[in-house]
Amino acid sequence: MILHVSTWPEIERFLSASKTVIIPIGSNEQHGPTGLLGTDWLCPEIIAHAAEKLAAEQGEPVLIAPTFNIGMAQHHLGFAGTISLRPSTFMAAIEDWVMSLARHGFERIYFLNGHGGNIATIEATFSEIYARYSYRGEVCPFALKLTNWWDLSGIAKMCSVMFPTGHGSHATPSEIAITYAAYPDQVRDVVPDPKIAPNGPIREAADYRARFPDGRIGSDPTLASIEKGQQLIDAAAISLLKDAARFSAEPVPPKAVS
Amino acid sequence: MILHVSTWPEIERFLSASKTVIIPIGSNEQHGPTGLLGTDWLCPEIIAHAAEKLAAEQGEPVLIAPTFNIGMAQHHLGFAGTISLRPSTFMAAIEDWVMSLARHGFERIYFLNGHGGNIATIEATFSEIYARYSYRGEVCPFALKLTNWWDLSGIAKMCSVMFPTGHGSHATPSEIAITYAAYPDQVRDVVPDPKIAPNGPIREAADYRARFPDGRIGSDPTLASIEKGQQLIDAAAISLLKDAARFSAEPVPPKAVS
Amino acid sequence: MILHVSTWPEIERFLSASKTVIIPIGSNEQHGPTGLLGTDWLCPEIIAHAAEKLAAEQGEPVLIAPTFNIGMAQHHLGFAGTISLRPSTFMAAIEDWVMSLARHGFERIYFLNGHGGNIATIEATFSEIYARYSYRGEVCPFALKLTNWWDLSGIAKMCSVMFPTGHGSHATPSEIAITYAAYPDQVRDVVPDPKIAPNGPIREAADYRARFPDGRIGSDPTLASIEKGQQLIDAAAISLLKDAARFSAEPVPPKAVS
Amino acid sequence: MILHVSTWPEIERFLSASKTVIIPIGSNEQHGPTGLLGTDWLCPEIIAHAAEKLAAEQGEPVLIAPTFNIGMAQHHLGFAGTISLRPSTFMAAIEDWVMSLARHGFERIYFLNGHGGNIATIEATFSEIYARYSYRGEVCPFALKLTNWWDLSGIAKMCSVMFPTGHGSHATPSEIAITYAAYPDQVRDVVPDPKIAPNGPIREAADYRARFPDGRIGSDPTLASIEKGQQLIDAAAISLLKDAARFSAEPVPPKAVS
Amino acid sequence: MILHVSTWPEIERFLSASKTVIIPIGSNEQHGPTGLLGTDWLCPEIIAHAAEKLAAEQGEPVLIAPTFNIGMAQHHLGFAGTISLRPSTFMAAIEDWVMSLARHGFERIYFLNGHGGNIATIEATFSEIYARYSYRGEVCPFALKLTNWWDLSGIAKMCSVMFPTGHGSHATPSEIAITYAAYPDQVRDVVPDPKIAPNGPIREAADYRARFPDGRIGSDPTLASIEKGQQLIDAAAISLLKDAARFSAEPVPPKAVS
Amino acid sequence: MILHVSTWPEIERFLSASKTVIIPIGSNEQHGPTGLLGTDWLCPEIIAHAAEKLAAEQGEPVLIAPTFNIGMAQHHLGFAGTISLRPSTFMAAIEDWVMSLARHGFERIYFLNGHGGNIATIEATFSEIYARYSYRGEVCPFALKLTNWWDLSGIAKMCSVMFPTGHGSHATPSEIAITYAAYPDQVRDVVPDPKIAPNGPIREAADYRARFPDGRIGSDPTLASIEKGQQLIDAAAISLLKDAARFSAEPVPPKAVS
Ligand code: NI
Ligand code: NI
Ligand code: NI
Ligand code: NI
Ligand code: NI
Ligand code: NI
Repeated sequence: MILHVSTWPEIERFLSASKTVIIPIGSNEQHGPTGLLGTDWLCPEIIAHAAEKLAAEQGEPVLIAPTFNIGMAQHHLGFAGTISLRPSTFMAAIEDWVMSLARHGFERIYFLNGHGGNIATIEATFSEIYARYSYRGEVCPFALKLTNWWDLSGIAKMCSVMFPTGHGSHATPSEIAITYAAYPDQVRDVVPDPKIAPNGPIREAADYRARFPDGRIGSDPTLASIEKGQQLIDAAAISLLKDAARFSAEPVPPKAVS
Repeated sequence: MILHVSTWPEIERFLSASKTVIIPIGSNEQHGPTGLLGTDWLCPEIIAHAAEKLAAEQGEPVLIAPTFNIGMAQHHLGFAGTISLRPSTFMAAIEDWVMSLARHGFERIYFLNGHGGNIATIEATFSEIYARYSYRGEVCPFALKLTNWWDLSGIAKMCSVMFPTGHGSHATPSEIAITYAAYPDQVRDVVPDPKIAPNGPIREAADYRARFPDGRIGSDPTLASIEKGQQLIDAAAISLLKDAARFSAEPVPPKAVS
Repeated sequence: MILHVSTWPEIERFLSASKTVIIPIGSNEQHGPTGLLGTDWLCPEIIAHAAEKLAAEQGEPVLIAPTFNIGMAQHHLGFAGTISLRPSTFMAAIEDWVMSLARHGFERIYFLNGHGGNIATIEATFSEIYARYSYRGEVCPFALKLTNWWDLSGIAKMCSVMFPTGHGSHATPSEIAITYAAYPDQVRDVVPDPKIAPNGPIREAADYRARFPDGRIGSDPTLASIEKGQQLIDAAAISLLKDAARFSAEPVPPKAVS
Repeated sequence: MILHVSTWPEIERFLSASKTVIIPIGSNEQHGPTGLLGTDWLCPEIIAHAAEKLAAEQGEPVLIAPTFNIGMAQHHLGFAGTISLRPSTFMAAIEDWVMSLARHGFERIYFLNGHGGNIATIEATFSEIYARYSYRGEVCPFALKLTNWWDLSGIAKMCSVMFPTGHGSHATPSEIAITYAAYPDQVRDVVPDPKIAPNGPIREAADYRARFPDGRIGSDPTLASIEKGQQLIDAAAISLLKDAARFSAEPVPPKAVS
Repeated sequence: MILHVSTWPEIERFLSASKTVIIPIGSNEQHGPTGLLGTDWLCPEIIAHAAEKLAAEQGEPVLIAPTFNIGMAQHHLGFAGTISLRPSTFMAAIEDWVMSLARHGFERIYFLNGHGGNIATIEATFSEIYARYSYRGEVCPFALKLTNWWDLSGIAKMCSVMFPTGHGSHATPSEIAITYAAYPDQVRDVVPDPKIAPNGPIREAADYRARFPDGRIGSDPTLASIEKGQQLIDAAAISLLKDAARFSAEPVPPKAVS
Repeated sequence: MILHVSTWPEIERFLSASKTVIIPIGSNEQHGPTGLLGTDWLCPEIIAHAAEKLAAEQGEPVLIAPTFNIGMAQHHLGFAGTISLRPSTFMAAIEDWVMSLARHGFERIYFLNGHGGNIATIEATFSEIYARYSYRGEVCPFALKLTNWWDLSGIAKMCSVMFPTGHGSHATPSEIAITYAAYPDQVRDVVPDPKIAPNGPIREAADYRARFPDGRIGSDPTLASIEKGQQLIDAAAISLLKDAARFSAEPVPPKAVS
């Protein structure tokens, strides 16, 4: 069930069967000379929508929220097309998404993330949200979970087999393959130079551009292909459903309020 | 040119020809028993992407940013599936989008809006952004513009002809028609009761739900059809291109810095 | 009843008869070569105090709060004497005024506004305040209303008769006339050049000063006179009392809390 | 020169002769059974306007900004009619006033304060404003000064002679006398009980109302009279002009930027 | 009892006997050519720990929280080693300390302050915290108190006897003596020039450094000695225990909630 | 060199030899029935001060800032004595520490962290700080680094040898051993039940206390001893010096400003 093409009575009915919602979250930022700017939000969206389709076919619908498409990408601002939130803004926005969904009765809010640079801020936001309850000694009526798509069960292994060298950590062949599989008319044939990009620390945008002239970190995106992308999507969709089901079924201990 | 399926070098090239970017912006909120929750962000996205296609065919490409899909919908929070930002969060996020795009050299940033409840906050944000420069006596290197799709030239008239009664102001047949045209498998056949919804002031969510039990305001969404939606999209896309072109060509007076 | 020359027990007694308070709100900003810097807060103050006097004479007292005299005027900062709040500050301050008055039991809080540049931010603030309740599923115990004095019943028509040309939109003859009527020793005899000021979009302060060299937009303030000002005050005071009475009497639907 | 009944070209001319502006600042809060709610902002306004008149007569005009009429009065919120800003809001608003005035070239910004509860927050705000420059190693182009009217030279002594007992610290006969002198038709004849109010610490509003049932602290406001008020105004006006002149003439050391 | 070398069950037990906690709070900032950068947080820490030891010996334990070591020192940022919070940050942090301790049941939270520049911001923060309750008409379950160590009973007199001239107001011989007594291997033998430092107003860091070239204000720190420091510590520790005991025993009036 | 027992001229001299400063950062929170509340800030302080002593003996002084002793511990607020900052407050405070130190010319700011719950927020803060420069296209004049003491070279291995079972992740025998080594009179002899604590996810404080009744996660703190603590301190001090030296020596690429 895709939230944004549903009506409110349909969501209300869904809530009588399940209290879980999955939010694809990513970033819109440069992905080297051949990667799409939307890569990091397209990947979780593609996987989540594939999972939704699978679940519907299996008669156990899951609910996918709209994609949270702009994240924390300050270090990529030296490259045209990147759009970033400051961490403090990102936190406020995630809070509002969560408090809106919690208002309707969702008790398990699952973020499927597509951008490494988002992780710290999302986790800090979870603490900021829980803290509202912790200072007041109240029970929080929902649980939050963050999973990166590349950490879904089986994916890391599949990537290491597919891309034994040149996977790198930004503009990776795996993420680019996923977008190519979903948008086959967007494949770029440029061969970057050097073929495998350099590595280094991540700081402000000017430093980043000086260290990583075409934007990639450690990757050889020419290894990406539509076929590999489809394999990753298929595997990730299955793992996502399992992971979300585990999260939905996780028991909560009896809590005392002080 | 769709920003999120472009690469950064492509955007850099685009910037040597044009300094204008169009951002579809809306809201994810209840639209009555037959309207999609995404209606208000889908409409400007649909129109902007139609315009982009038209412009590409005409050899005068325009650039469409990712859709800003969550806006200010606090009054709809009594209905499942609504996701809202607080105005203060919304402002911070718009600021970050603008400052990111301005960083790359965009000088005309055009928001195509799909939600009446967004207008005040977007305009307040424009002032907040301009104020950064005004307090320092600096020239702002970009101009901001907000247009609601229903205010595009010719659209209001077309709506009044299509829907002489029962247009209303929320979950209107015009916006629902646009989504039906773009998502023909999402047409809902429910007939709401009463056929034309009541009117009244907009306050907090509890008050809203008490006044507007199924979420609609003044509208009869059964008047929507795929055909009417397509007509609206076609007309709006043409008007959007003209309006954006006017904005791009608008001369800026010589400014003194104090 | 003027709040700031009342005592707290007097306000407590007023509250047993009425739950409505009227707040004049405006801005302190340049009004061209002949308009007073205080014009936009003096106008609503003058009208509200005239209405208060009228109501007292009629034995149906209304309560006028102190004037909120600094608003959102970032675009006027290129002209000496302008004092502006950033929209975000303006929002926080309006929230605190409202939460203070609501604390005492006021249920209808009516802002009589004198500055077009305030509208978006005030409306965004209303949403910010209502949102406190909407996210929690609570009923908001008060209603907020914004009326610009020039939108009071009968005023626009009176202005178009008085000033068929040269009314414009900033430093207008109508607002200047009102201040001249209230402060007859402050009439300025300067004739601006050109007599009718130019029009254009409003952006940051440097852009504003470049477009509107003496500060006016589209207006010929030499049309203002003490007599016209008094007519406007008299008419607006009557309309304000009617509008506030309607607001006070407006029924609230039974609300469910979720 | 009263800023809000001046035009911007007049302020621009004033700036060629003086860089100093005086801002009356206070609070709108309960002042016991006989004191006006506006007492704390009316007092500095009355004194500043008296000083302005005197200065104009002496041919050495001073400039008085609009009155900052709502301050930090959270502890008085248990009494009807009190309007308070949170300290954080108060800080943001003072910052915006200062940055607006500094934008026009004012170099000495003098706050004449009428409310003890404002002092800490105003001083914290001065540090917040200076800190903008201190972190960047920049020279701040203006100096800020806070003076309470009761600390103006000669006033404390005059009060101790006029009110040897029963002056107290809130709803004092001196401040009430000043408002009675300026608003002689607003004298209240109520005799509070007990005649001299209790003393104690100041905390939240519920605690305050429990300790100080009618709002006063340590004062006997029946000692106030129009005559005493006028004496205080006359003396304070003279002292204010001297204090502001000293501040205007204070030399600034040569500053190095790092 | 020193909180940070206690376990949580020990603090829980302490709370069954006492609801009071003492927080040493200061600043880390230049203290002239001979004073330690930590002077302003070391002094209250030294005194509080001495008091704790004394109380333990007397069988009436008091609880000392960790030291809040960074305060509001923007004006000292022109001197290496100074670390400052902006007032707004300082306020947020104090709020969080207080709300954490209040969460555990502490009802009397006593700040022993070592830095004059902190006073305004700490007091503003107390108001910000109380305001949370005052706007809602709630009773605040705790009381806050700020005492500067030099205002403890008997200390000012002792200082005036020890240092009849050259005490000054920053990098004073009294505070330096206290640190020397606690850190006898950190005595500096430099003789500053001039021996007694100049006086003047405090503004931004650039202005401060121009007025006070070596950082001191009005002081002659060569008057400090280990012996005098020890005397001050001993006296202050005794006074602190008395002052905290009075605060703990202070009755709270019955409060009505509105 | 310990910053807080140094004078500002000494720090100025240090800066002519080195631009690196090390900040111990941790948290004050429950550490089970036998761990000290200060454990997480004491550990990095103990290690950093041991390293400082070693470096001084080797004639290559390093500079240690005061300890940042309160961090992000919202989940521990159900246990008495825990003091936590909200993530948003923590971020603001870290920003101010960094901007203060950067103001003096420090170019490498190294945080030695003692609390796992701090990591996400510290990293998010680094991005917030870098973003100031990235949006403006400016070069950031300093680099930031976060290292947890347990990630220092050799420590994890030493822990796994010392504590093959029962190390766990909160109130671990390694961190408790370090505090016991430094504060030998603070060893607690309580044997917790069960000996090895349970594991689980970390959410709000009420949930935490329900899952982890005595506060520990997965650990058996009875394995801690003074001897093991000393070994860990010695090894960590050496590794810290190496890691900080590497960071100080790290070359920065030539950066272009856009
Ligand atoms: Ni990526
Ligand atoms: Ni809509
Ligand atoms: Ni106006
Ligand atoms: Ni007063
Ligand atoms: Ni000091
Ligand atoms: Ni720990």
